[in-house]
Amino acid sequence: MQPIELQHAYRLLNHGPTVLVGSCHAGRANVMAAAWAMPLDFDTPKIAVVIDKATLTRELIDASGVLSLNVPCVAMKDQVMAAGGMSGKNHPDKLARCEITTHAAANTGVPLVEGCIAQLECRVLPATAHVAGPHDLILAEVIAAWADERVFRAGHWHFEDAAPELRSLHHVAGGHFYAIGEPVSALPVANA
Amino acid sequence: MQPIELQHAYRLLNHGPTVLVGSCHAGRANVMAAAWAMPLDFDTPKIAVVIDKATLTRELIDASGVLSLNVPCVAMKDQVMAAGGMSGKNHPDKLARCEITTHAAANTGVPLVEGCIAQLECRVLPATAHVAGPHDLILAEVIAAWADERVFRAGHWHFEDAAPELRSLHHVAGGHFYAIGEPVSALPVANA
Repeated sequence: MQPIELQHAYRLLNHGPTVLVGSCHAGRANVMAAAWAMPLDFDTPKIAVVIDKATLTRELIDASGVLSLNVPCVAMKDQVMAAGGMSGKNHPDKLARCEITTHAAANTGVPLVEGCIAQLECRVLPATAHVAGPHDLILAEVIAAWADERVFRAGHWHFEDAAPELRSLHHVAGGHFYAIGEPVSALPVANA
Repeated sequence: MQPIELQHAYRLLNHGPTVLVGSCHAGRANVMAAAWAMPLDFDTPKIAVVIDKATLTRELIDASGVLSLNVPCVAMKDQVMAAGGMSGKNHPDKLARCEITTHAAANTGVPLVEGCIAQLECRVLPATAHVAGPHDLILAEVIAAWADERVFRAGHWHFEDAAPELRSLHHVAGGHFYAIGEPVSALPVANA
């Protein structure tokens, strides 16, 4: 994993991958899957993610004010499915059961998920308190980001040059995903 | 295009496609491209989308309280690029220049973009007023949705059975997209 310049961090999520959300508080750590995540701003980079209030992840984020978004790849499909289908509330050993390993991010200690092709270390924005009210939306600033240089180099994804197992996952429903596919380039816009 | 049951509407966005945002007010209509859109709730279905306050689209949505999200496909790549790179403020004939055609949705009159593989007719949530404050976030309820039955049937995408030109687009940066790729199925979760 290589550090990413923060002004390029939005590109790690721009194509809409499903993510793993890392959280921790007072010695307890968790990882869950979330398909509803997106960039919110370029610079300083911010993200928005929907996390149900009923989850352990939400409790840990609300208590600590930090989270990570991690972009898993095809090789991790069963771990993503397990992380999305099993609650850390019911299973204190969830990470072991899901065969998910993490390490602590330097700034905040939030768990970053190993084997992912991108990782974003994030701090919840103060404004979230009122935003989250009726919805399950969390807004956060990205304070550091990393990507796997086999698939993300010089500020761009290069899935087409790497093993198919390194492609990002895009969840539809019920354990059915699509891998990201082939590059498509559009014509430049004249007289914009 | 076939109507979609509202409880399945989130699946039109769940895999993270780039969208075209339709808007109109007082006889003026516009369409812009946006990569930062996601589901916000299942039922009633809601969406979140980031739309810069400097855009004509934002002015029209703020004035009318309605918008559409439309999922374009590979065949529309140049229209998506043009819609993202040209402002309706500078070009009153933007839609003609972008070769984008629309028709008015029945409930709200908001423009739905023809040639797209999915369309969601949306009404801005009252809560947006304070949410949007420091950010460019719009939250809206989906009041009707349609999809192209060649690629979305019985509540699921079936890209693998259709022409490659009908795959959704996932923008990275600067006119470089990925098409959605191949299906990936995960193992069911035991003892969740």
